[in-house]
Amino acid sequence: MMRVGIIGVGTVGSHVVKILQENEDIITARSGKKIVPIMGIVKDLSKKRDINIPLSDNVDDVLENPEVDVVLELMGGVDEAYTIVKRALQNKKPVVTANKALLAYHRYELKDIAGDTPIGYEASVAGGIPIIKALREGLSANHIEAIKGIMNGTCNFILTKMMNEKAEFADVLKEAQELGYAEADPTFDVGGFDAAHKLLILASIAYGIDVKPEEILIEGIENINSEDIFFAKEFGYNIKLLTIAKKCGNKVELRVHPALVPIKQMIAKVDGVMNGISVIGDRVGETMYYGPGAGGSATASAVVSDLIDIARHTQNSPMLGFIKPLESAGLSLMNSDDIATKYYMRVKVADKIGVLSKISEVLGRHSISISSFLQKQDALKENSAVLLFSTHTCKEKDIQNALKELKGLEFVEIPPAMIRIES
Amino acid sequence: MMRVGIIGVGTVGSHVVKILQENEDIITARSGKKIVPIMGIVKDLSKKRDINIPLSDNVDDVLENPEVDVVLELMGGVDEAYTIVKRALQNKKPVVTANKALLAYHRYELKDIAGDTPIGYEASVAGGIPIIKALREGLSANHIEAIKGIMNGTCNFILTKMMNEKAEFADVLKEAQELGYAEADPTFDVGGFDAAHKLLILASIAYGIDVKPEEILIEGIENINSEDIFFAKEFGYNIKLLTIAKKCGNKVELRVHPALVPIKQMIAKVDGVMNGISVIGDRVGETMYYGPGAGGSATASAVVSDLIDIARHTQNSPMLGFIKPLESAGLSLMNSDDIATKYYMRVKVADKIGVLSKISEVLGRHSISISSFLQKQDALKENSAVLLFSTHTCKEKDIQNALKELKGLEFVEIPPAMIRIES
Repeated sequence: MMRVGIIGVGTVGSHVVKILQENEDIITARSGKKIVPIMGIVKDLSKKRDINIPLSDNVDDVLENPEVDVVLELMGGVDEAYTIVKRALQNKKPVVTANKALLAYHRYELKDIAGDTPIGYEASVAGGIPIIKALREGLSANHIEAIKGIMNGTCNFILTKMMNEKAEFADVLKEAQELGYAEADPTFDVGGFDAAHKLLILASIAYGIDVKPEEILIEGIENINSEDIFFAKEFGYNIKLLTIAKKCGNKVELRVHPALVPIKQMIAKVDGVMNGISVIGDRVGETMYYGPGAGGSATASAVVSDLIDIARHTQNSPMLGFIKPLESAGLSLMNSDDIATKYYMRVKVADKIGVLSKISEVLGRHSISISSFLQKQDALKENSAVLLFSTHTCKEKDIQNALKELKGLEFVEIPPAMIRIES
Repeated sequence: MMRVGIIGVGTVGSHVVKILQENEDIITARSGKKIVPIMGIVKDLSKKRDINIPLSDNVDDVLENPEVDVVLELMGGVDEAYTIVKRALQNKKPVVTANKALLAYHRYELKDIAGDTPIGYEASVAGGIPIIKALREGLSANHIEAIKGIMNGTCNFILTKMMNEKAEFADVLKEAQELGYAEADPTFDVGGFDAAHKLLILASIAYGIDVKPEEILIEGIENINSEDIFFAKEFGYNIKLLTIAKKCGNKVELRVHPALVPIKQMIAKVDGVMNGISVIGDRVGETMYYGPGAGGSATASAVVSDLIDIARHTQNSPMLGFIKPLESAGLSLMNSDDIATKYYMRVKVADKIGVLSKISEVLGRHSISISSFLQKQDALKENSAVLLFSTHTCKEKDIQNALKELKGLEFVEIPPAMIRIES
């Protein structure tokens, strides 16, 4: 028997208890022993909960309880969770956590504290999809060339609706909030921060690189509008919030932003609240992993798979993928300025003679050359036009400088918008 | 250091050697030790090979070699491979194999012989996609409700071409042979047997069920024609060779056959030589795994990941997913007669009055009701028509009886064809 103490019994925690109890037959057959939740820690004991395990509001009842074999951290947050997981590991209790923020900030400290004590965190990235296992074990023979993920269901739901119904961001966000797919304060999701946390966890497994969320390029989907959708459809793209990790020599690009993705790519076909992660290995080529990235039951499925691994004593694979430091080492974060990709731009201008030639001149001076171009009359304002165009590959720094310069031109009516193209 | 002996150094074996040598840095960092191929066994020593390890034509140089820590079986075939793997395991040498036929017939014997000695076989199903790991470990908390796989690249290439170009089977098969995607004798692939071997391996992990290829329904793609493609397009389907495992109470359905799959499903979007496996778990819902199902480098990627697992001592998870026999047990193979699904039929008839009513009468008598219907004039033969229709859910046995009866009607010109619909 393996006895589990659960710190934080919310949606995911309740589903973990349910799975352990309702699927006891298959879990026992697969792990060779019963896995039994024996204690749950909650903040407010007076709240009614539909689970039948003893509850306490004192974490010591799990952390210092000799009967608890494994600690499940499902409380969320960074600082308090870190203290608790640290204590559990110092007491040599294996830990399973679904806490991506904790790992985005403290994964390397936790790895060092853990030593040989297992930490499972499959549930921290892409919910029910076993992407941690795939990357850490399934693709371990490969140098990872790139990871492109759709790892935020809220954003993907909104963007899918915008593409399918030519709806505007604000309207779809409201609908997502009503359906429970977006929080009242949606910033963490639509701003790309949730996806960034997940990206950093995957980047550690792929590259052994220690980076904090503040160090990487993160852009949200708030500024996508129906003109961008129009351009994307016209030229065969979907718009997705992508998390991208890419190896270029001894630099690793890490970025989260909306991107135009050719509709032929498998990752572009991941719609609605679903998640998908495409991984390019130097030996295997592209593999892709698809499924529900959130939800109590799917996330709990991943948590319980970690518990079963611990029961089987197979959680010996190194927490972040590497037993020895990578000898080719020297991998460091690429400066965002040096990102090279293709770009799409939207520039709203007064419809006057000479506008296009002035814009072309600015772009040319920044070494940016245009690939496709579309001009539309502004539906709402007379004598206004919207210029939509894509570029050949150029440097992020050049694009940013060009955007700044365009913004200052007297006939440019609102700050120009830009979306990167991932092909 | 972990030293590997390779029995059978063909395409996959050569790629394994290449990966171990060229990706030594990452493999050592990930596994904590060097993994070194020290001996290869080949049938014909005189043949030129582009690899730099010692070769021998005597299997004892691996099996009885005290320097060999792990045996890699890449020779293929069933009987001889079984003898060799058995000897390796009896000598307590861990084994990694890519041999699906061996496992389709002998996986349970090998599991018993192995005991605690690891056997890795990730490469035996869907090449570079870590589907064995996903099913055995990633989804271990779930009762598996269904597996639907596209696991034969040859068939998927042919069907994709037929769909995209409205081409006929024989022409596309010839092209596939010229491109090296199909063997000179394509029966093993296009007849569904290769996919069936893989299905049985996955079914053991999901259900603990021991079944041989001869016991399950296997149909190939040889009889699909352009009229079927026409119907599929008209009603929003793709045609795929599907491997299906499905739990219905205490019965498990296992079958391999072409199927009409709604184009909205992710699995229907897996095109060309690529593989995809959709797995439905009772807790996680649908997850899907996509990637290259064949090819030397992709398959070798899976082989090497197994070697790394053995080096890390994480290959302790039970070979076929279960440590104890499943207690809910009693799962047995469903008789093919009892399969219930929707069906598509193609009936070529003399274009006479009363034909349709006679056919409807036959179907009705067998409890089959029609859902969609299309009639086409035969392009090649005057006074002939092709009736294309789909049914509501009915029983395989009723369909088979109806097909037999229709075949005997004087105005039915060639034996009617049937494709199952998976929605």
